[in-house]
Amino acid sequence: MSTTAKAFAALAADAPFEPFDFERRDPGPRDVAIDILFCGVCHSDLHTARGEWGGTLYPCVPGHEIVGRVRAIGSEVADLAVGDLAGVGCMVDSCRTCPACREGEEQYCEGAGFVGTYNAPDKHLGGHTFGGYSDHIVVDRDFVLRIGHDEKDLAAVAPLLCAGITTYSPLRHWKVGPDQKVGVVGLGGLGHMGVKIAAAMGADVYVFSTSPGKREDAKRLGAKDLIVSKDAEAMAGHVGSFDFILNTVAASHDLDAFLALLKRDGTMTLVGVPEDPHPSPNVANLIFRRRALAGSLIGGIRETQEMLDFCRDHGLVSDIEMIDAREIDAAYDRMVRSDVKYRFVIDMQSLKRPA
Amino acid sequence: MSTTAKAFAALAADAPFEPFDFERRDPGPRDVAIDILFCGVCHSDLHTARGEWGGTLYPCVPGHEIVGRVRAIGSEVADLAVGDLAGVGCMVDSCRTCPACREGEEQYCEGAGFVGTYNAPDKHLGGHTFGGYSDHIVVDRDFVLRIGHDEKDLAAVAPLLCAGITTYSPLRHWKVGPDQKVGVVGLGGLGHMGVKIAAAMGADVYVFSTSPGKREDAKRLGAKDLIVSKDAEAMAGHVGSFDFILNTVAASHDLDAFLALLKRDGTMTLVGVPEDPHPSPNVANLIFRRRALAGSLIGGIRETQEMLDFCRDHGLVSDIEMIDAREIDAAYDRMVRSDVKYRFVIDMQSLKRPA
Repeated sequence: MSTTAKAFAALAADAPFEPFDFERRDPGPRDVAIDILFCGVCHSDLHTARGEWGGTLYPCVPGHEIVGRVRAIGSEVADLAVGDLAGVGCMVDSCRTCPACREGEEQYCEGAGFVGTYNAPDKHLGGHTFGGYSDHIVVDRDFVLRIGHDEKDLAAVAPLLCAGITTYSPLRHWKVGPDQKVGVVGLGGLGHMGVKIAAAMGADVYVFSTSPGKREDAKRLGAKDLIVSKDAEAMAGHVGSFDFILNTVAASHDLDAFLALLKRDGTMTLVGVPEDPHPSPNVANLIFRRRALAGSLIGGIRETQEMLDFCRDHGLVSDIEMIDAREIDAAYDRMVRSDVKYRFVIDMQSLKRPA
Repeated sequence: MSTTAKAFAALAADAPFEPFDFERRDPGPRDVAIDILFCGVCHSDLHTARGEWGGTLYPCVPGHEIVGRVRAIGSEVADLAVGDLAGVGCMVDSCRTCPACREGEEQYCEGAGFVGTYNAPDKHLGGHTFGGYSDHIVVDRDFVLRIGHDEKDLAAVAPLLCAGITTYSPLRHWKVGPDQKVGVVGLGGLGHMGVKIAAAMGADVYVFSTSPGKREDAKRLGAKDLIVSKDAEAMAGHVGSFDFILNTVAASHDLDAFLALLKRDGTMTLVGVPEDPHPSPNVANLIFRRRALAGSLIGGIRETQEMLDFCRDHGLVSDIEMIDAREIDAAYDRMVRSDVKYRFVIDMQSLKRPA
């Protein structure tokens, strides 16, 4: 009733990744088995594998930006076929009965919370879930996404499953559109997708970065300009002018510098949890323009499909650097130094190559 | 071209209030002169008179919860008549041309900011504006409110001009209504109006207070119950259940305890600026339910009129304790101890009585 999967796993917080075999359930009536072709590398993978958030279950097989080809489907799966391209993101299940799940916002599941693609309890086989740094995965149809992009772009589609939806969802929720001035704080894996998506939604997008050297890249990605967030004069020129700011920076930083740039009734939404708290935001900054500071978590399955279709229609994919499975540790080290434009993606064919 | 006004003023931060005469302009074509009958006592009055916010201009005549009777109108004032009841709140002018002013949100005036009823530059006579602790006031018609309540309730209407609109505006802006669970943090001058108004809007209202002794009063004001915010068990019973929380407490406190009680997509709105920052709110608390922390400042003139009409229609006034002008210092001392249910109102007839 199970099939051996080949993967790369961290066996301990301080151990390098190494080849690891484990069992995947065989697909049940509502399941889809997917041969994984590419898997994006998210900062969450790094934090989890290295035990930086606590609660990591080892062996740890991270990966929740998964794309591949359907290998098998259960008897009740009517709308996917063997050979189709498919994706899996951060979730593989949820309670399905709470208000959030019923509204298609499974990421906010109020039952036991959504079941993470990795490091969550596995109700099928016991133990914990294993993610996309592996050769295949078996997932309930309700948590499988269709991929409409050309197959040649498939590797660059993978990061949409987390970086794409994490930025798309708040941009949609706060109704970003034409004639709006939108800021994106941080130009990393999340930020570069936020720029592309917000620009495709018709907004005038400005990147906030501490690195003036990223200006040309910001413009190439679709931004009107890059504002150096350490340059007080440059920042002052934008006070009270932004409709919405998407803040992708998880490191502790001064939120007031950005909140002050929001228009009346503007919102800044955080999508990263800092290890140390941000300095407490100035309440007057909120009150005197009725501004809001909010948070947003990935996005629901229905919205993830909407995002994938939106990106296909607008020709959007991630900017990626492809790596072999044996390069994960080195890639993590480069991510810590923000040395990636803008997302590593593991070529899963590399699992089959001799070491 | 001017008329002497009798008032009570603080001549310095550490000086008691004393009788003080000054000049009011005579009404111009668009002005309304109002004989002040009652003036509410707001915490802002205290902070300003005692110089606690810095920037106080002395002599300081506070007071921005003003009700009275129209004594004279300018030639261009068509919709108010001598003898009408009228009110003046926190603002007596604004730029009138910025987007906020054009949208009737003068409190967020993006010109030089709104002109405060006291302690703001007076473009008519020079010097600074003097507020409602005085026998009359002259204000542009556009910043004068109609009072529709019965005259017998007039003293208790005065606090609506600040405490009423400061709570009504966010409750309306965040669309509080029937079938919603709404929290009000703090049961003081603002909080008690928040409870009355939110209940009149149809919401199920819960008061958060550190004082269990206020439970019966909370219920009398319209709340379903009082939740003792220091009681972790009581708080835990309400996690994730509130649609909206209006936080009226200006003292620094733990925001997370309340943010955790919001539903997905819920907002907590602050209406007070703490002297010392609140502890930095937990970002995960925002992200994992897409919650927002916002601020709100009084309300626009159009909305203040709407609030007064709403309160008249629902029979809402403030719970007040009447004082003489000579009792202002003692009242301030009691306010510092939160010893007032729930608003002091100065009877301006007392200005005319011998000391």
